[in-house]
Amino acid sequence: MNQRVTIVYCTQCRWLLRAGWMAQELLSTFDSELDELTLKPGTGGIFEVYANDQCVWSRKDAGRFPEITELKQVVRDVIAPERDLGHIDRKKKLNL
Amino acid sequence: MNQRVTIVYCTQCRWLLRAGWMAQELLSTFDSELDELTLKPGTGGIFEVYANDQCVWSRKDAGRFPEITELKQVVRDVIAPERDLGHIDRKKKLNL
Repeated sequence: MNQRVTIVYCTQCRWLLRAGWMAQELLSTFDSELDELTLKPGTGGIFEVYANDQCVWSRKDAGRFPEITELKQVVRDVIAPERDLGHIDRKKKLNL
Repeated sequence: MNQRVTIVYCTQCRWLLRAGWMAQELLSTFDSELDELTLKPGTGGIFEVYANDQCVWSRKDAGRFPEITELKQVVRDVIAPERDLGHIDRKKKLNL
């Protein structure tokens, strides 16, 4: 199966740098799992991340941007659910 | 028509940063023309850029990476042929 992530960002809000940074973080972390990552310019304050067409983050719904660690976790849950993200996951468990 | 660019880069050669930088340059320059830009991890020294599925740069064929200015020109020729790239195009004319 083709594993893919899409980041839709608002150009009016100048979120390209943020989206580009997150893109590189995801491609770096999931370098053996991800087949492609697409950046899609949008408007109207949109910031949405999709993993295999499933929306894993919407700034409108969440009311904020994701931390890069939680973005990796929600992407992982779709494209590599068995994968341990190391200290990111351990930190989360300690916070419970 | 959906205007899109795809950059295929070799992860073994660690070209993600280079590909990510070029992605952001293209999205910034063609912010009103590009509908999506996809980064695709590859292997074996691959570095290829496609504009609407047409190969506009192959490191194997060219024997080198493109300058960012010439990459913008070959992408422009496919997705926005009427667009003037300003000083990039003027510099090219002066060099003739």
